[in-house]
Amino acid sequence: MSETENISSDDVLKLHLDEVIELLRKQELEETVLQHQPMPHHELVETLMHKQHQAALKQKLDQLHTADIAYILEALPLEQRLTVWNLVKSELDGQILLDVSDAVRETLISDMDAEELLTATEMLETDEIADLAPDLPEEVMLELLKHLNEENRARLESVLAREEDTVAALMDFGMVTIREDVTLRVVLRYLRRRGDLPDHTDKLFVVDENDILQGVLSLKRLLVNSLDATVGDVMSRDVVYFHLDDDAAEAARAFERYDLLSAPVVDERRCLQGRLRVDSIVDYIRERSDEERLAQAGLKEEEDLFSGIWKSAQNRWMWLAINLVTAFASTRVIGLFEDTIVKIVALASLMPIVAAIGGNTGNQTSILIVRSLALGLITKANVRRLITKEIAIGLMNGVVWGSVIGGVAYLLYRDIPLSLVMAGATLLNLMVAAIMGISIPLIRHALDKDPAVGTSVLLTAVTDGAGFFIFLGLATVFLL
Amino acid sequence: MSETENISSDDVLKLHLDEVIELLRKQELEETVLQHQPMPHHELVETLMHKQHQAALKQKLDQLHTADIAYILEALPLEQRLTVWNLVKSELDGQILLDVSDAVRETLISDMDAEELLTATEMLETDEIADLAPDLPEEVMLELLKHLNEENRARLESVLAREEDTVAALMDFGMVTIREDVTLRVVLRYLRRRGDLPDHTDKLFVVDENDILQGVLSLKRLLVNSLDATVGDVMSRDVVYFHLDDDAAEAARAFERYDLLSAPVVDERRCLQGRLRVDSIVDYIRERSDEERLAQAGLKEEEDLFSGIWKSAQNRWMWLAINLVTAFASTRVIGLFEDTIVKIVALASLMPIVAAIGGNTGNQTSILIVRSLALGLITKANVRRLITKEIAIGLMNGVVWGSVIGGVAYLLYRDIPLSLVMAGATLLNLMVAAIMGISIPLIRHALDKDPAVGTSVLLTAVTDGAGFFIFLGLATVFLL
Repeated sequence: MSETENISSDDVLKLHLDEVIELLRKQELEETVLQHQPMPHHELVETLMHKQHQAALKQKLDQLHTADIAYILEALPLEQRLTVWNLVKSELDGQILLDVSDAVRETLISDMDAEELLTATEMLETDEIADLAPDLPEEVMLELLKHLNEENRARLESVLAREEDTVAALMDFGMVTIREDVTLRVVLRYLRRRGDLPDHTDKLFVVDENDILQGVLSLKRLLVNSLDATVGDVMSRDVVYFHLDDDAAEAARAFERYDLLSAPVVDERRCLQGRLRVDSIVDYIRERSDEERLAQAGLKEEEDLFSGIWKSAQNRWMWLAINLVTAFASTRVIGLFEDTIVKIVALASLMPIVAAIGGNTGNQTSILIVRSLALGLITKANVRRLITKEIAIGLMNGVVWGSVIGGVAYLLYRDIPLSLVMAGATLLNLMVAAIMGISIPLIRHALDKDPAVGTSVLLTAVTDGAGFFIFLGLATVFLL
Repeated sequence: MSETENISSDDVLKLHLDEVIELLRKQELEETVLQHQPMPHHELVETLMHKQHQAALKQKLDQLHTADIAYILEALPLEQRLTVWNLVKSELDGQILLDVSDAVRETLISDMDAEELLTATEMLETDEIADLAPDLPEEVMLELLKHLNEENRARLESVLAREEDTVAALMDFGMVTIREDVTLRVVLRYLRRRGDLPDHTDKLFVVDENDILQGVLSLKRLLVNSLDATVGDVMSRDVVYFHLDDDAAEAARAFERYDLLSAPVVDERRCLQGRLRVDSIVDYIRERSDEERLAQAGLKEEEDLFSGIWKSAQNRWMWLAINLVTAFASTRVIGLFEDTIVKIVALASLMPIVAAIGGNTGNQTSILIVRSLALGLITKANVRRLITKEIAIGLMNGVVWGSVIGGVAYLLYRDIPLSLVMAGATLLNLMVAAIMGISIPLIRHALDKDPAVGTSVLLTAVTDGAGFFIFLGLATVFLL
């Protein structure tokens, strides 16, 4: 990929998109005309016209950065997307496949035959092939493996064998290694003779004859120190490095904490295996926060903006099904108290309020706990303090909001016992919410499960059920 | 900040924290003993012991990276946090204040007097002072301004005058500028004479005699090209640069799209003003996604894990108040139908289900729309298609889930008309949810407001109210 060529600001990017859409529209318009008025003497002219717009479109695309073409492909409906995709220079195909989202990548790959895929991917780096591998047909992968040299084939196979979300899955192999006994002058000469450096090289990795990592030499130190100094004199020996199996999230935190641009990846013998770059980390952080946000609304995966209705619906169903089960379960509690509701019908319109405010406070607590767990701020030493604090807040909120809600209930129904029941139920449900908001994520964390997943569903089900039960139960005991 | 010294993996970091907590515990234990058994002949020994643990603690802290001390401070309750803070070497104070979260920074600063603050901050870079400025007392800021030279004072004042979330607020001034008519040999000699480069320098900025940006020379090109080439020969002229007032979110997207490590910031005359670095972008992305997640649960700001109960409660109240108002409003609908509920009490336990599934599908739709808006994927050309698609999914979901819910209602109550009303109400409420899920974020976006903020509250209020109204209304019309 070229370093800084053909780049656009957000606004310019939108203009590019508008222009592409306009050209596509013209082309489609002509096709329609062509189909409906098949006069022989016009045919030639119109085919030419059509070709003209196509050429204009192609020319437009040729000027764009691959990341921008990827953006345009994502913003286009399926049939137009494929029209554009077929006009893109085939040597850019591989890079664009890497740049688009998973959902869009699927639609592009399913439009390509094995040969096209092979052409598109055989020029990619090994780590890039590994990123595409899950989406490529087996025959293409087998063919690709044949084209790789032995070192790269071994690398590819080892990356593919690793689990997702490990450092090995994010790393690349663009590393420049040097020995520590040479002088900086020699290093500079070596680099100039290489004639090229891998993208985003900010440091060289210093290894011994067995490829064991000894330290790193930043380009900065290479540039400011005396030419006669040896690499060993000026390199850093206290290096941030990662192991192949390290958790990607942990690596991301280390990149943030220590403001890293790149870091070596080693195996258990400290033998250099690859390089982790900040731009992979940025992509990882963005994807994870995206996934979490989608998961919060129960969306299984990112959706292609223009994927079929059927496919989109399926993406959303699992959550709706779970939600329905919990909703039926928590409202069954209401069924137990139908006699009470018939006698005091005001309970029907007040009970959802008790449930709702319980769900809200519980979610606030659990999000703070999940976040603190993610930042590693919760330890055995401080967890008890934290629980005490959250329960105290729950109690205080219960007294304050219980009084407010009781007061409003009184204004609506002018019934003191009913208002007291409402206030009491709110207080109790807020306590339930605080306790569940702390314990659900802590227990999931203790069981080594992601504390964020499903917490909100479970919590809302409990606070709804408890809210209905406490409120209607108190009403049955005290008001009948 | 040192380049790669004293760094720790996540696990080691937790061990450091445990060790600090253990030392703090021992020290506190001794203090208690000292207070309760004031035997004169022991006093001296115990004071010495106390001093010993304090010395051990100080020694421990001296070995740690500032980012790790910041982590430990965040994980400690207030009084222990201040004990540790007072033991930290004062020359590290400034860097640590930059590393901790806003909430924790407040607690640290409020423990320092003006003189300590001045010592801590006067060694910082201008852009770092700007980051701390909102939290510093005015007298300290005035004193700091006196210490700065004219150029840096002007820079600081101009950064402080800019709005948050602009490029100007994120940039720093660590840039190395060169002219395009010199050879690479001269550049290399110049850098070696400088003896140091700003952190994270991956490219040099090429400017003319008026500081107008001409291009950039990456260290990579500097290292691999012939020494006799001039800067002008090998630099890139087609450069990603930002303006002072550019939106920070837009800059973050450009950094992701083009995998940038740093980029020049210019004014309207293209005159070089500063530098934007990927590590500031990473922090920005992380902070924004954190803020959004907290805002979704209605938390005004990040909370210090150990802030006072009173302060925490206030952080959460605004949202609870809003939620209460919408809950009362949407349940007032139920009040209108109390007569119907008294006659068919099963409605009371079925109505929350219609409301809940509406809220869920609406939130799914709105989150996808908000995300697509954030990625700039929604344009005038495709918005109509998108609306059609979402309504079609709403319709399909309505038919499918309406039938399921109607079926379950039949199993519970063996009442065909009631089940049909339930199914019909679900279908209609899912349509309402789809339409609101699209229109609320689109309208907020069209009005130039953040489409994510408040969408969920508003949406849930509407789907609750509509769910109750449609279900109870249909029941009144068809079942009475």
